[in-house]
Amino acid sequence: MINIIEQMKLFLEPKSVALIGVPRRTGRGSFNVLESLLSLGFSGEVYPVNPHAREILGKRVYQDVKELPKGVDLAIIMVYRSAVPGVVKDCVEKGIKALIIVSGGFAEADAYGKELQADVVRIAKEGGARIIGPNSLGIFNNFRNFSSTFLPPRWEKIPVALISQSGGFLEGFWNFTVGKAIDLGNMCDVDFSDALEYLENDPEIKVIAMHIEGIRDGRRFLKVAERVSRKKPILAIKPGRGEVARQTVASHTGSLSGEGWIYEAAFKKCGLIRVENVDELGDFVQAILYLPFPKGNKLAIITPTGAGAVMALDGGENYGFQLAQLSAKTINKIKEFFPPWSPPLNPIDMMSAGIAHGYGKVYRASLEALLEDEGVDAVLCIAGSPTLKSIKSIAEGKGKPVMVWLLGKHDEEMLARIKEANYSAVFSSPERAIKALAMVRDNSLE
Amino acid sequence: MINIIEQMKLFLEPKSVALIGVPRRTGRGSFNVLESLLSLGFSGEVYPVNPHAREILGKRVYQDVKELPKGVDLAIIMVYRSAVPGVVKDCVEKGIKALIIVSGGFAEADAYGKELQADVVRIAKEGGARIIGPNSLGIFNNFRNFSSTFLPPRWEKIPVALISQSGGFLEGFWNFTVGKAIDLGNMCDVDFSDALEYLENDPEIKVIAMHIEGIRDGRRFLKVAERVSRKKPILAIKPGRGEVARQTVASHTGSLSGEGWIYEAAFKKCGLIRVENVDELGDFVQAILYLPFPKGNKLAIITPTGAGAVMALDGGENYGFQLAQLSAKTINKIKEFFPPWSPPLNPIDMMSAGIAHGYGKVYRASLEALLEDEGVDAVLCIAGSPTLKSIKSIAEGKGKPVMVWLLGKHDEEMLARIKEANYSAVFSSPERAIKALAMVRDNSLE
Repeated sequence: MINIIEQMKLFLEPKSVALIGVPRRTGRGSFNVLESLLSLGFSGEVYPVNPHAREILGKRVYQDVKELPKGVDLAIIMVYRSAVPGVVKDCVEKGIKALIIVSGGFAEADAYGKELQADVVRIAKEGGARIIGPNSLGIFNNFRNFSSTFLPPRWEKIPVALISQSGGFLEGFWNFTVGKAIDLGNMCDVDFSDALEYLENDPEIKVIAMHIEGIRDGRRFLKVAERVSRKKPILAIKPGRGEVARQTVASHTGSLSGEGWIYEAAFKKCGLIRVENVDELGDFVQAILYLPFPKGNKLAIITPTGAGAVMALDGGENYGFQLAQLSAKTINKIKEFFPPWSPPLNPIDMMSAGIAHGYGKVYRASLEALLEDEGVDAVLCIAGSPTLKSIKSIAEGKGKPVMVWLLGKHDEEMLARIKEANYSAVFSSPERAIKALAMVRDNSLE
Repeated sequence: MINIIEQMKLFLEPKSVALIGVPRRTGRGSFNVLESLLSLGFSGEVYPVNPHAREILGKRVYQDVKELPKGVDLAIIMVYRSAVPGVVKDCVEKGIKALIIVSGGFAEADAYGKELQADVVRIAKEGGARIIGPNSLGIFNNFRNFSSTFLPPRWEKIPVALISQSGGFLEGFWNFTVGKAIDLGNMCDVDFSDALEYLENDPEIKVIAMHIEGIRDGRRFLKVAERVSRKKPILAIKPGRGEVARQTVASHTGSLSGEGWIYEAAFKKCGLIRVENVDELGDFVQAILYLPFPKGNKLAIITPTGAGAVMALDGGENYGFQLAQLSAKTINKIKEFFPPWSPPLNPIDMMSAGIAHGYGKVYRASLEALLEDEGVDAVLCIAGSPTLKSIKSIAEGKGKPVMVWLLGKHDEEMLARIKEANYSAVFSSPERAIKALAMVRDNSLE
């Protein structure tokens, strides 16, 4: 047997891939993985296998696994469930060591499916091959333009990996992006621990996110997770809190979901960062990547709306931050903009000063002064999208976390502005911004 | 004195408006209310007043309030704070009965400001005029193309009114839209009760939202709110829970914020629907406008992702919904699409059936069957934006709430699709969709 890292590389960084049972149909609604691999620009060898086709999208199609050349790294298996054991046997005999079984109808379905899954595990084990799945979309690796799934997601080369038990994540269902993703599906063989060991020393990945429906071999998981979480932050979301949800997990991936509180204790023990929901997962990833560690709990706020400041303070008090006392130097730098009866205080409510002296000018001067103030550990900018560019140019490289709560309707115009400004520590509410900052404060690896 | 409804009409539906202290500058960054009124297409008379200008944007400018013609409905006052009492006196002498004081520096600022505010209140009262403000952006009424604020928001003629103590709301700072908005500012005179009485019988408004920092004359408020909330749902958000936040409220609008639990009890007593934050306010408005009342607690879910269904169930159990048991008739209608080992269950996990038989076809058939099933009171559709159009055409007119949790990255392409589909019961997470449904269930006026 090769070691686990070399093994996982066959799954995530294959040089040659067999697509067993690839559909003949192509185009919209065909869910064709060959088409998706070609459109991604995957540079390895691809061997489509389908007894009913000679050529798909200009590629030669093999009739049978037996026809394949030697030395294929990975097989992606998409045949009807009862045909899977035979295909796995053929793959093993060809010397293929990594198998992604996309087909469903195994332990998540019925008694016959459970037997099939046990057969498949036995055949692979005897032949020295490892399985991801069944009932899995497998892998997405943006750094290698490789995906075993049929929907080419619009993802980026960012240093974030996601390990999940759900194809939904690979299909780009969620409102955040990752650089690598592994769908473990029914997790009959390769599991969270294997994936973590691969990611542990992966230079392309800085943050690991996990969507956990259930855990196999908890003892090993705790050991591996505890070790890896000392090197890279691991975020974990564990849905399925109620009884009905747990039953649905069973029919979804055949996993036992377990009681919420057991997971909570286990997560704490091994240093995982517990995440409540998918929105928060996106926020926390962003915070880890783009917010420097705050040196203390002193928060400053710049705002064009007093009401917004009040809402932000509710968030701040919930997470143990205090309002920074501005230094005399800071106040002197900006007081010229403010009417004498309303000197700058924290929160700095800058709307009327902005109307009198220029909105952008007052905003910039205020942020610059706050970032130079030693009594300020973090800044929350309440701002509209036109101010984002200034905030970015002032905040970057100063070593203090500067979060933006972006005001206004998130329409196409605003999205275009956000993209143009390219500032990443943007949150959709003050509570979310401050909760993310608290997470960075409480989970620093520095 | 005219009655309160006629009085409030002078503020919200004026036929003639004086802009006292309008800036000479126009264009970006000038915050010019004349420019904003012209761009909105306001059809009433507009009288700019500024001693330093003869003409702005082609309109004749009056040097002084004394020059104005008789019979002006509303004055918007934007002069330096110490000039406000004199201007109010001139307005009262001209017979103007409605005054919006935009200027700041009053009770929210310092002792002198408090005195000024008391003066202004006395002068207006003696002259039989009413004041909105000071420290207020006043009114936005999309049904009359009228706004007393300088930023023309991109709002719609929807039957939702917002009463707030913050200009931020009028500036379109929040990610939801309203048809009318009233910023009470320091609330030295016109208050929440006055605004509620105007909206009570307003045929253009079906839902009232309130952003409350503090309440004056609690006794009258409770009486009016209790009466109005029996006719129209009233949503109320009350920020400023912690001690620091309460101090900031004081410097923002000069209001006393009060303890959270007192407001909670008072809100319950008079039938207000308590809202946690601004995101939720948007969700709840949407739910009241677009979700029919659910006849019971039986929820059905259609999903292309098992993981998504599990997350939705966590939300469902939190808010007292149960999974509907599908009728034999419903199952018979759609079982042909599903493999024999995975018949349709609730949640209906339709991805593999969709791959085999056409994604859109299976989705449509499933939703149609659920809406005809008497055991189903509400449906949560977990869907990508391309499915929205089908959902709309099937759900509309069926009398059952159909919420959509929209999957995928909310990029420009998706926003364009949402706009095109024009389906309004769309939520960004299952928890938010189900919480909004529970709010409709628990607060029906039917």
